[in-house]
Amino acid sequence: MYELGVVYRNIRRADRVAADGLGRYGSATVHEAMGRVGLMKPYLRPIYPGARVSGTAVTVLLHPGDNWMMHVVAEQIAPGDIVVAAITADCTDGYFGDLLATSFMARGARGLVIDAGCRDVRDLTEMGFPVWSKAISSKGTIKATIGSVNIPVVCAGMIVNPGDVIVADDDGVVVVPATLAGTVLEAAGKREANEADKRARLAAGVLGLDMYGMRAPLAQAGLRYID
Amino acid sequence: MYELGVVYRNIRRADRVAADGLGRYGSATVHEAMGRVGLMKPYLRPIYPGARVSGTAVTVLLHPGDNWMMHVVAEQIAPGDIVVAAITADCTDGYFGDLLATSFMARGARGLVIDAGCRDVRDLTEMGFPVWSKAISSKGTIKATIGSVNIPVVCAGMIVNPGDVIVADDDGVVVVPATLAGTVLEAAGKREANEADKRARLAAGVLGLDMYGMRAPLAQAGLRYID
Amino acid sequence: MYELGVVYRNIRRADRVAADGLGRYGSATVHEAMGRVGLMKPYLRPIYPGARVSGTAVTVLLHPGDNWMMHVVAEQIAPGDIVVAAITADCTDGYFGDLLATSFMARGARGLVIDAGCRDVRDLTEMGFPVWSKAISSKGTIKATIGSVNIPVVCAGMIVNPGDVIVADDDGVVVVPATLAGTVLEAAGKREANEADKRARLAAGVLGLDMYGMRAPLAQAGLRYID
Amino acid sequence: MYELGVVYRNIRRADRVAADGLGRYGSATVHEAMGRVGLMKPYLRPIYPGARVSGTAVTVLLHPGDNWMMHVVAEQIAPGDIVVAAITADCTDGYFGDLLATSFMARGARGLVIDAGCRDVRDLTEMGFPVWSKAISSKGTIKATIGSVNIPVVCAGMIVNPGDVIVADDDGVVVVPATLAGTVLEAAGKREANEADKRARLAAGVLGLDMYGMRAPLAQAGLRYID
Amino acid sequence: MYELGVVYRNIRRADRVAADGLGRYGSATVHEAMGRVGLMKPYLRPIYPGARVSGTAVTVLLHPGDNWMMHVVAEQIAPGDIVVAAITADCTDGYFGDLLATSFMARGARGLVIDAGCRDVRDLTEMGFPVWSKAISSKGTIKATIGSVNIPVVCAGMIVNPGDVIVADDDGVVVVPATLAGTVLEAAGKREANEADKRARLAAGVLGLDMYGMRAPLAQAGLRYID
Amino acid sequence: MYELGVVYRNIRRADRVAADGLGRYGSATVHEAMGRVGLMKPYLRPIYPGARVSGTAVTVLLHPGDNWMMHVVAEQIAPGDIVVAAITADCTDGYFGDLLATSFMARGARGLVIDAGCRDVRDLTEMGFPVWSKAISSKGTIKATIGSVNIPVVCAGMIVNPGDVIVADDDGVVVVPATLAGTVLEAAGKREANEADKRARLAAGVLGLDMYGMRAPLAQAGLRYID
Repeated sequence: MYELGVVYRNIRRADRVAADGLGRYGSATVHEAMGRVGLMKPYLRPIYPGARVSGTAVTVLLHPGDNWMMHVVAEQIAPGDIVVAAITADCTDGYFGDLLATSFMARGARGLVIDAGCRDVRDLTEMGFPVWSKAISSKGTIKATIGSVNIPVVCAGMIVNPGDVIVADDDGVVVVPATLAGTVLEAAGKREANEADKRARLAAGVLGLDMYGMRAPLAQAGLRYID
Repeated sequence: MYELGVVYRNIRRADRVAADGLGRYGSATVHEAMGRVGLMKPYLRPIYPGARVSGTAVTVLLHPGDNWMMHVVAEQIAPGDIVVAAITADCTDGYFGDLLATSFMARGARGLVIDAGCRDVRDLTEMGFPVWSKAISSKGTIKATIGSVNIPVVCAGMIVNPGDVIVADDDGVVVVPATLAGTVLEAAGKREANEADKRARLAAGVLGLDMYGMRAPLAQAGLRYID
Repeated sequence: MYELGVVYRNIRRADRVAADGLGRYGSATVHEAMGRVGLMKPYLRPIYPGARVSGTAVTVLLHPGDNWMMHVVAEQIAPGDIVVAAITADCTDGYFGDLLATSFMARGARGLVIDAGCRDVRDLTEMGFPVWSKAISSKGTIKATIGSVNIPVVCAGMIVNPGDVIVADDDGVVVVPATLAGTVLEAAGKREANEADKRARLAAGVLGLDMYGMRAPLAQAGLRYID
Repeated sequence: MYELGVVYRNIRRADRVAADGLGRYGSATVHEAMGRVGLMKPYLRPIYPGARVSGTAVTVLLHPGDNWMMHVVAEQIAPGDIVVAAITADCTDGYFGDLLATSFMARGARGLVIDAGCRDVRDLTEMGFPVWSKAISSKGTIKATIGSVNIPVVCAGMIVNPGDVIVADDDGVVVVPATLAGTVLEAAGKREANEADKRARLAAGVLGLDMYGMRAPLAQAGLRYID
Repeated sequence: MYELGVVYRNIRRADRVAADGLGRYGSATVHEAMGRVGLMKPYLRPIYPGARVSGTAVTVLLHPGDNWMMHVVAEQIAPGDIVVAAITADCTDGYFGDLLATSFMARGARGLVIDAGCRDVRDLTEMGFPVWSKAISSKGTIKATIGSVNIPVVCAGMIVNPGDVIVADDDGVVVVPATLAGTVLEAAGKREANEADKRARLAAGVLGLDMYGMRAPLAQAGLRYID
Repeated sequence: MYELGVVYRNIRRADRVAADGLGRYGSATVHEAMGRVGLMKPYLRPIYPGARVSGTAVTVLLHPGDNWMMHVVAEQIAPGDIVVAAITADCTDGYFGDLLATSFMARGARGLVIDAGCRDVRDLTEMGFPVWSKAISSKGTIKATIGSVNIPVVCAGMIVNPGDVIVADDDGVVVVPATLAGTVLEAAGKREANEADKRARLAAGVLGLDMYGMRAPLAQAGLRYID
């Protein structure tokens, strides 16, 4: 968050197979598979329901009310990337709209995660370009001050390094460090493998109390039943 | 909110006919029929639009970041119940997802009202299991500390006693004390009976000023018209 | 915000052609065309997605928890108007529901912008009557205290004079002073004329950096590229 | 929260010795002594630093923007009471100022806890009448609608029954149910007795890790030290 | 809020005697004397307790993160003025510190009301220059974009016209339109004249219920006492 | 934020002279000297006014409602350190009180910066141990889950690496990377050297417009004066 005015062109992206594969599991499963870390703050919300993406992060640090660096980051996008935008101070302005989305899509971006506002949401919805933002606002921005591209940033409370994997859906946005992507993919896969069976048993009326063997530890913790 | 570590198994639920009937009217009408009390704070929002349910409350008190008691309350659900979950301190974690929803549905629950976060909202939407929550978050919870089931709780600013009727829809969540359910049902019915006629007259261009006889009291209150 | 108890019956509405035409461009374009002023705070949100309206403002000032003046303002609505409701103190109560919407529609209103809460959102969605509000709440209001109609008000941080043009859509709500409506309409038109071409070039992979000639000023501002 | 328009004149107050004694320990110790329940939400703040009081609750339920019931509750105050004021919906208006404080003090009240706003804070500070509120606001209130006195209320997220003990200081506001006051007083005393010794040892440089024997359980939990 | 890039040099200030006199009464009394309008939102707080000022408003409209116009408004300050600073979008940056305060004091300003952040609060406290702000923040601002001076602005939800009277103290900030200053001063004086007598009676134990004759209207409103 | 369960014992602290010297300038000057980066979010507030400290960061990552690691970090404190505490999810609980402060002081800590709540503020004020927190709350915490010590953390929106310099006062909290401490110290010194002269000239009535030569660029930016 300290280095202003630089664009790192060559970043080491997470393994493509892992980056792509993590999207299958969604943010909740991936978050669990990581040991319950890596989640951005829940004030980030998708601009329309139903999107689920994963990809490699290219990061951009912008100033409040100034989206100049959005054009700079566009050039650094490779297919399969997700842009992660951090701001040096709280701001709800609409940094991103349909023109930038057109450009990002043309570069192969899969989505945008921004710790600020977004606009043209109807157009973005029609284009199918998903954005996770903290506000929706018509307020435009200027192009006057430079920030940085592909430095480590803090977005919605979480550190994101360029090349990390981003997994985003209706439940939120999770960051998986590039070096952990393969391991987390495997852990997520195992986690989900268990779930189908559990779901079937719960649907059949089996209680979690019994399925997970919770009755004894609950009693030991002092839980009392009163008729 | 004081008694920790207990599960009350036998609660007195509100009259079933009243509990079921109140859902027809929706939270706004029921709130009015109660004399404008009983509404939870409006930060509780449904995870998808269009749901409207009513049912009898089973309550659960949980700790921040700990959803162990969700499994305990599952066993206490009877068909027609709505689970009301309160937390001992502010928390936005995702206490509830598709597995628990599967279990709750198998027990006959009609929905969940939780003063915290929810996850797996895409799955829950597909399953048609409505949740009113104050956040959506992938953040998982642990299972380490016991709370209580079926004690009086404060959920989103409102006291809920086990067995009370919950009415929830796009407009919010209302609590009707079990002992008042019949009376409120009747009052809601009368209120709505009037509305069809009013709606027709308003649609025909009659002004509320005239239909409700407001011109005289407004003038008496000092309202002046200036051309 | 100072004159209580008055209803101005004759207001000077913005030019009808301009008021109607501005809706084509949406709040983001109109906000830019005005020089990036006039936007209400982004906490105002539409109760359902996809609505886009423009119209002339009739204003109403109400007290917290009291919607009496909603009936007074209804009479002052002319076809093509949008009601703008301000409250003398922060309040999230549901001032407006399906009955008032029926009346407003019968008078020719195109929507409501309210710095408070709204209810009956399912009905309003079905009726296609758009509302921009800061909350959704079942909480009803009383009819005890008079406010004013068609005085200048502050709604969500922005001054609105009766007769001003309101442009509202998924991105937010913009106020265009009546005297500027024509000029802004023209500016918005020019702005949008440019956009189709830009969009095509961006979609073809041209970068904003090149299309807007940003490389030189960025370098001058000190931007460095690191490989 | 449901019964409007009633004033209960005879309430059962907690034991006086316990109610008075709990103030010695402060809200943090009392909250711990209760098993970490009973705390109001931390948005309640004292209007000036340094006050610490305990007393028995007389409760009042008011409507947004209406302080009529403040005069009704004044009559029900007995020496040693603390008034607990709840509102039927969120409101920051200044319900309470120097005149009411003069009256409350004349009746023997030790303070006010209000889930809304307060004003005349300079006068109240000079008078030494402590108030815990969620806002400070000049905004006055009307006297038009009746609420209730000495019914159970929810104040800042916590149930308060008339006669319960309130402990309030710079750290917050805790509610002790009347029936538990003696037990909690004893537990608080024991808790504090331990603290002097602990404080001395910590001041001498002993680590909590050693004093509390935490090294083994931390190691067992998997904590690793890296040089 | 619409005219950018202009500085009005000659404004009509409220009557000096009225502007100075209103400060004696404080924001709560003045707010009541105006009929309970004119109050800025209560999120504005003084940076230190105990200040009470009144004066005539010079207004300035700034952009987020840009305090250039603070230097422009300094020149327009006349002795007895209070600067009212509005921002075109939400911002908590520290627009104002000890250097600007030195300049403002040299020009005769009595204080600053700003709908954004302030810094150097320790210095400002020592200098005795009061500021009402919505945040305290070290974050500095740039000097790149022009706004306006002495146009009507919206500050913390309230319209302020240049020359209006500002009354600010621990309870908040009230705006009195220049044309009403004399009338409000008189009304405030009458209001306060009554208060000394009331205070004495309340201190002697007389209840507001009796002093204001509230028992009959309360009974008529349906209030019931239960023993 | 990813590595749980580790304690780094040997961290590289910033140069002591620089770490100590930065405190002379305060957070606003240091923030400017760094190029306006490094500031934590302004919701962090000191528990009492007037404290100003600088020191080297030892970091701790804790879980919501669990302060076990506070005892672990105590052992890693060296004289001149400031503890920086981050939480894995939003929490306002009171993680820190007079006992821990006694221990921290005995180890030579100069203060605590915590992205959560604090309690015993009266005692801490008397002890003169400054804390910057986002809440004050009596709510106690448990000791059940391990986090980490001296890993990079995000605290109030800013990355903090162990050994970085923290500068905290009434205006906020700034983080200076260890490698930049000397440079920033020098820049801060130069900045302040200029200020005494500026202050004197402004106090003498010179306008910033003239002192900074702003009239020409303002005119060039289009500023118009209207008489």
